[in-house]
Amino acid sequence: MFNYEGILEKIGELLRSKRYAALRDLLESMEPADIAALLEDSGEEAMPLLYRLLPKELAAEVFVELEADSQEMLINGFSNTELREVLDELYLDDAADIVEEMPANVVIRILDKAAPEMRKSINELLKYPEDSAGSIMNMEFLSLKKDMTVEDAFKRIRRIGGDMETINTLYVTDPTRRLLGVLSVRDLLLAESDDLIEDIMDTNVVSVTTTDDKEDVAQAMSKYDYLSMPVVDRESRLVGIVTVDDAMDVMEEEATEDIEKMAAITPTDKPYLKTSVLDTFRARIPWLLLLMVSATFTGLIITSFEASLAVVPVLTAYIPMLMDTGGNCGSQASVTVIRALSLDEVEFSDLLSVVWKEIRVAVLCGAVLAVANFGKMMLVDRMLLGNTALTPLLAAIVCLTLVCAVAVAKFVGCTLPLMAKRIGLDPAVMASPFITTIVDALSLLIYFQFASHMLGL
Amino acid sequence: MFNYEGILEKIGELLRSKRYAALRDLLESMEPADIAALLEDSGEEAMPLLYRLLPKELAAEVFVELEADSQEMLINGFSNTELREVLDELYLDDAADIVEEMPANVVIRILDKAAPEMRKSINELLKYPEDSAGSIMNMEFLSLKKDMTVEDAFKRIRRIGGDMETINTLYVTDPTRRLLGVLSVRDLLLAESDDLIEDIMDTNVVSVTTTDDKEDVAQAMSKYDYLSMPVVDRESRLVGIVTVDDAMDVMEEEATEDIEKMAAITPTDKPYLKTSVLDTFRARIPWLLLLMVSATFTGLIITSFEASLAVVPVLTAYIPMLMDTGGNCGSQASVTVIRALSLDEVEFSDLLSVVWKEIRVAVLCGAVLAVANFGKMMLVDRMLLGNTALTPLLAAIVCLTLVCAVAVAKFVGCTLPLMAKRIGLDPAVMASPFITTIVDALSLLIYFQFASHMLGL
Repeated sequence: MFNYEGILEKIGELLRSKRYAALRDLLESMEPADIAALLEDSGEEAMPLLYRLLPKELAAEVFVELEADSQEMLINGFSNTELREVLDELYLDDAADIVEEMPANVVIRILDKAAPEMRKSINELLKYPEDSAGSIMNMEFLSLKKDMTVEDAFKRIRRIGGDMETINTLYVTDPTRRLLGVLSVRDLLLAESDDLIEDIMDTNVVSVTTTDDKEDVAQAMSKYDYLSMPVVDRESRLVGIVTVDDAMDVMEEEATEDIEKMAAITPTDKPYLKTSVLDTFRARIPWLLLLMVSATFTGLIITSFEASLAVVPVLTAYIPMLMDTGGNCGSQASVTVIRALSLDEVEFSDLLSVVWKEIRVAVLCGAVLAVANFGKMMLVDRMLLGNTALTPLLAAIVCLTLVCAVAVAKFVGCTLPLMAKRIGLDPAVMASPFITTIVDALSLLIYFQFASHMLGL
Repeated sequence: MFNYEGILEKIGELLRSKRYAALRDLLESMEPADIAALLEDSGEEAMPLLYRLLPKELAAEVFVELEADSQEMLINGFSNTELREVLDELYLDDAADIVEEMPANVVIRILDKAAPEMRKSINELLKYPEDSAGSIMNMEFLSLKKDMTVEDAFKRIRRIGGDMETINTLYVTDPTRRLLGVLSVRDLLLAESDDLIEDIMDTNVVSVTTTDDKEDVAQAMSKYDYLSMPVVDRESRLVGIVTVDDAMDVMEEEATEDIEKMAAITPTDKPYLKTSVLDTFRARIPWLLLLMVSATFTGLIITSFEASLAVVPVLTAYIPMLMDTGGNCGSQASVTVIRALSLDEVEFSDLLSVVWKEIRVAVLCGAVLAVANFGKMMLVDRMLLGNTALTPLLAAIVCLTLVCAVAVAKFVGCTLPLMAKRIGLDPAVMASPFITTIVDALSLLIYFQFASHMLGL
């Protein structure tokens, strides 16, 4: 949307000619996320210098957007005063996120320099399980009492609204902090100044608990079009809010995680180019080893059929095609079901309708593939390429296997993720590579059964 | 988060006993998205009845959340007055979305009953390309002039704010509608009532144009933590806004689309269980056919090596393992790069660093896999299973192939998506199934080359 490379170059020039005022003006004219990216790309030496040019509040906003290793580098260079200044400007949930990523010595220094109240809150936030609503919520939010007037509410917003992450949605609580209702700042603006909050608030309010999965929270916010979601503790007391910007980040992370798991990769939360070779290797090798070992079964099946393959060697040529097609059909079914599961479109109780649907799709796909393949084997392989060993009977065996392999693949592909979900496993790890291995073995078994019976081997 | 099945049952009971007042109270206590789901699950007969119980404004909110076929059914049952009432309550972007999904006869009726202004706007919105910012923007937004005071702004919000989708972010435009700045309703609340808008507005405002890809818009909103994104036309005039709830929907859709493409499925925008068997079949079969035909190459390679396989039949048993491992390595690399591309973490100019990284990962993975496989072949296949035909030389051939296949797979897997992006294709279609087919052929070629040279076949 803007000329990133050009600006990066300009920053380099201004740095070299030490035109710091111009640099500050240039940086100030941009969004925190862009400034963060520019700082990181301007080199390790320039980053602290550029960072110090930023006005205090903007500096804190940029700090939040930096990668963890850049944050660590900056903190290590900060004087105690500088560190305290940054911490004072941070929202609690951002501060807790940063603390989570830092090595112990940096954490100690941060907690030491943070205001006592922030220290306490950070400690509390860090106690929530990693993927819970509690871990991403912000404990600073604006709450109102039901017997306030609209005018009282405006006074309260004017007094403390400046320190809150958002005031677009306001929550109404009773003296024990139980959530009674919700209203938007627009409701306030459109009401009369002596209206009572309880008369204009909406008492239908969906909330989540601190231990709910953050993915479900993001999903619910998207479904209900909420800008913030109230988080309550086990005693239904309002303890925090999750804002929509954090929900978007969660959705993006979770989609990436699902995609990685589907490709047999252990998810990491770092951007690709920032992940070290060793980390990438570690995320990939366990699955490769596991899947390699499970491919042993296909090897065993072929070995047991070696003698027959030696008699009719042309059968071997179609093994890869049968395996690939089975694998592709299986991954189409599994990936569709896995995605539907994570979007809450499907659940375990839909098992029968999912299977029934996949079976019908399999029959259609199998029929078309078999006909196309029979035609191709006869016209291309036999006539065009002159492979006379390929009789119509052999082609029929391959095509029958194809139909069965497609059906088996679709069935295995759609049931395994649902089963995994049912027993509490992550459905995404049941994706293509895993299912391909199973489907390969089954396809080969079917192939060799047809071959032995129909050829009398 | 609440007992959906229980509520559905209760609705059935209340319907049977015709307790409509209780039904209305029950429905009114829920969120529009939940009411829509309940209506759809309560059966075709009950739906119009339940819908008519809803108060006007809530009814419109529920209408927007329904699936297209339910909307169509309701519209067909509406009297002209009912249709006009629903249309009057809809936001423009929602109305345009609905019109887009309806068959021609319904569209004509909607446009006929819509207020002239809405008709004009719907027509304008429908002119934007399908995946553009223009197609998802809302043309009703609140704009201010820079010489207004804060008090003037509040008056304007009180006058027309009730009809707007959001007033959380306000845009400042000049008399030719050019975007000058932005401010939040909080900025207004914290300012003095005689402050001028131009003194408190933020002139750093990122905007998108009507023709920008909606995926990029959602990405930018997530990056900048915007609740709404201003959309300008080619003359930089502010013509609409995209709100964060729509951006979240776009992100979810795009992730689903990417996942589907990666699994060789043509994306559809309907939920899994609502897609007909024929549509699912149509989305899957073209890729299966294409991939089946391309598997012909692997068949040809095996055929050309048939004579040698007959001499050393044990070689055949390792074909599936080599193919699967190559395929898995390739899909790990491709899926990682494809996701990094859609999150803007990587671009074509990073090709060299991506390749360099994947090569190092491949060396590590290849070495570990080869060692593990050599051990397994010697200990399990030869000693435990007594396959004496399996000499250390044969095992070495398999393991050497494995190392090369992993390297080739990682290389092909990471370069193809980048190439696709470069020439303007969608990188996601270059995912696993496609790459597996290429990697299979290459792995087999490597295998047979090693075998012929090292065994002198």
